[in-house]
Parts: sequence; C-alpha cells; structure tokens
Amino acid sequence: MRNLKLTLKYDGTRFVGWQRQAEGESIQGVLEDALARFEKGPVTVHGAGRTDAGVHALAQVASASVTCTHDVETLTRALNAQLPPEVRVTSVEDVPPDFHARFSATGKTYRYLLRNTPIADPFERSYVWHLPEPLNLAAMEQAAAHLVGTHDFAAFQSTGTETHGSVRTITRSELCAGVVWSGPHHAGGPSGLITYEVSGTGFLRHMVRAIVGTLVDVGRGWRSADSIPALLAEGRRGDAGATAPAHGLILVGVDYH
Amino acid sequence: MRNLKLTLKYDGTRFVGWQRQAEGESIQGVLEDALARFEKGPVTVHGAGRTDAGVHALAQVASASVTCTHDVETLTRALNAQLPPEVRVTSVEDVPPDFHARFSATGKTYRYLLRNTPIADPFERSYVWHLPEPLNLAAMEQAAAHLVGTHDFAAFQSTGTETHGSVRTITRSELCAGVVWSGPHHAGGPSGLITYEVSGTGFLRHMVRAIVGTLVDVGRGWRSADSIPALLAEGRRGDAGATAPAHGLILVGVDYH
Repeated sequence: MRNLKLTLKYDGTRFVGWQRQAEGESIQGVLEDALARFEKGPVTVHGAGRTDAGVHALAQVASASVTCTHDVETLTRALNAQLPPEVRVTSVEDVPPDFHARFSATGKTYRYLLRNTPIADPFERSYVWHLPEPLNLAAMEQAAAHLVGTHDFAAFQSTGTETHGSVRTITRSELCAGVVWSGPHHAGGPSGLITYEVSGTGFLRHMVRAIVGTLVDVGRGWRSADSIPALLAEGRRGDAGATAPAHGLILVGVDYH
Repeated sequence: MRNLKLTLKYDGTRFVGWQRQAEGESIQGVLEDALARFEKGPVTVHGAGRTDAGVHALAQVASASVTCTHDVETLTRALNAQLPPEVRVTSVEDVPPDFHARFSATGKTYRYLLRNTPIADPFERSYVWHLPEPLNLAAMEQAAAHLVGTHDFAAFQSTGTETHGSVRTITRSELCAGVVWSGPHHAGGPSGLITYEVSGTGFLRHMVRAIVGTLVDVGRGWRSADSIPALLAEGRRGDAGATAPAHGLILVGVDYH
C-alpha cells in the first residue's frame, strides 16, 4: 500500500461539509469517489479538519492509503478531471505509512472574513459575513488577543458536542482591519474588510465561529473586550456570542512537523 | 414624473442576462419587480448595456421614470431589501427628465479576467476564464493595442446580429499582466492573472468576448498580433477568434457627460 497526502482547495458553498453524509454531496464523498476510480474498491479519505456546510478551504489536507501506481502529477490531473469545479486538488505527495491527515496535524489556521459597509457586495455573499452597522475594531482586537494561550474553550463549543475535553491552545488570534483586497469585481478603496485569523493546535466544533460571533458582539458594544477572560473561566456556551455564519470561514492551512 | 438613475452591481452567474426574457430571471426583471412595489403599476427600467447571461457588472447604470416620492437613501435601502443578494443597488440619483441610461451614455468600460495557471481556482470559476496552457503575453498586448481607434468591428460581432452599422470607437484596449489580487481565498504570489480592459463609445453584441477570444488565439500562437489590422479591414466574423466565455466579463462602468 502507498500512503498519499492530498492538499485541497474548495468552495464549500453547495456542500454538506467535509464529512460524508447520508444526504447531499460532501467534500470527502466527491474525493473518495474520484479516488475510487483508480482503485480496485472503495477508498477512505481522512481529512485534517471536518469543515461544516458552507465553510471553505484554501489548503485542507487529506490522507488515503491507495494501491494505484500513477505518479503524483498524473494523479493530480486525473483527480481534478473527476472532481466538480468547486474542489481542486492542488498537490498530491507520497508520505510515510504512519502519516494521518488528522492525527499527525500539529496545528491549523482559520480565517474569517467580515465586511463592514452599508451595502453588501454581491460577489462576496458566499465568502464574507456582511455587517452594515459600525463596529468598534479596537475593542474587537483587544478581545481577540485575550484568546491566545491554553484555555478551556467550553464557552466556544457547539452545545451537545461529544468531546474529549475542551482545553485547547491558541497560538495566534488577530484581527487585521483595513486589509484591502482589490478583487476582480471589487471597487477597491477604503474597504471595510475585517480579517480575523486564528491558529492553534486544535479546535472544537464551531469554535472559530463562536469566537467570531463573540468578537462581533464586542464590536457592536454589546459586551466589553475584557469580558473574554471571564467567559473562558466560566465556560458557559450561553454566555458567549452566537455562532457566526459558516460562509465567512475558511480553513487556511494545516501544519505538520 | 420623476426620473431616476440607478447604479447596480451584480453577479450575473445565475441570470439569463440583463434583458427580461420569457423564461428565467433577468437583472432588468428583478429590478422592475422591485421598483413596481413602490409604484401604482408596472415600471420599465432602461439599462445602459445589455449584459449577456453570466456576465457581471460592477457599475451598470439604469434609468426609470417613477412616481414614488421616497428620498434616494430610503429607495436604495428598500430596493436592496427586495432584490436577490446577487444584485445590489449601490446608488439612486434624481436626474433630469431627458436622462436615458442607454441613449445618454457616452462610453463604457469592460474588464475581462483570465487566469493562466496549471490548476484552476475554485473561487474564481464563475468570474475568471481559466487557461492552463502558457500564453505569450507580449504578443497579446501588441494585438490589444491594434484595436484602439475607430474601426469597423464586423469581425468581432456575433453573427446574425441586426445592426445599425458596425463602426465603433475604442479609446483604450490594454492587457495588464501580473496584477495580483489577494482575494479572500486567494493565496497571492505570482498569480497568472491577466486583466484585459477595454473602453469605447459603444460595443457590438459579443464584441468584447470575440476580441478576448482573438487575443487568446494570439497568446497561444495560433495567429500573430499583426493579423488584427487585416481582421478589422476584412470584417469576416469567421476569421476572428471564438467568443470567449461569458463568465470572465464584467461591465466596469458607464460614462455620461
């Protein structure tokens, strides 16, 4: 058997998420189906992170044990020819047999995009959370900084999640305001784009979206930046902000040693 | 009666185009339906340019005679509340009664995006024409420059179009290679993005897309840059390149004196 590491970029808009479900198309499903065409039987693909429905990826990582002997360039081309255009394999690598996309991962980075302008941009509707009301960015930056470190993130976890503890380590939690992306259909100028980036050794289910919902509460003046430490200490999901919409979130990358 | 100038931004992906059709949703249709809710009866909206199915707009202009008395800010908000998220009214202005979005226009600018990389970007699939094979940009730039001026563009017009002559004036025709847009889901770096921008006093049906198809032929080495003057002089549609896909095209703006 041969062990492969696949790097994937995808627009999650029309998918039920990473994980194969009884109904609807999943990223894992389309990738397994594409790989199965080169194998004798079904293939199981393991993803580094289970992105939810509507969540995107710039560089999701997956691993799979296969028997096919095609070189990695041929395999990349062949998989892309099978996959829907919303999902692209950007690289295929041969890796040692003990490599596992999820268990070997040492860290992940997510990005969440917000657009703070009176009128939404039609080209961003599946990728950016539009918030028309003015936000206090300085307070949001301050709140974001409080999350760095090793904490119990129970207050930022989807309720009813089965879990093996909710302590996680966040190594970076930063708000970058005013980053202008002069996209193909973007007028440019002072843009109101707010980028939140968070890196950590692991994330709970809905954790980034719960953090963003809470940061937006801070931006709106509904809670103070300094309320974050108490939220972490008390660990009650109901005390933190609502879960931000899935479509603003993207898995930027996965780290391995 | 009151005459309004409306500026619109839209993602044309799922529409049949600007113009109302017997079947399918059009930009004109959704805008007329939204405006009709503030009027006693049906409203006719005139667009500056009839974008095709899949073609986008950064600042399409439309005009309409209305009776409603709402101020322009209220009208903007109210229209956006009615319109699907793919279409946004970015401004509403009161204009003199003789203003007509199409007949008063003195010029238009279109942009066409190409991505010249081995693997397509899933986030661009509705906005950028992906061309994996290497293109000769210098030759394409040279070819683009030949189009500036007043010419008979019969070779770049969709066949079977009823027309009042095919002489048009192009004031700018430029290829900008290497423009990097670090979009929300774009990795950045040397990007292979090729932007073609063309401005003129008027455009024939499918003219920009036929020009782009011809420029790509030049980039592929299928024809020389210096073949353009002869194409213009001879005016045979079959001699020029194929019509480039609609989704790479965007109406950037409309000029008025």
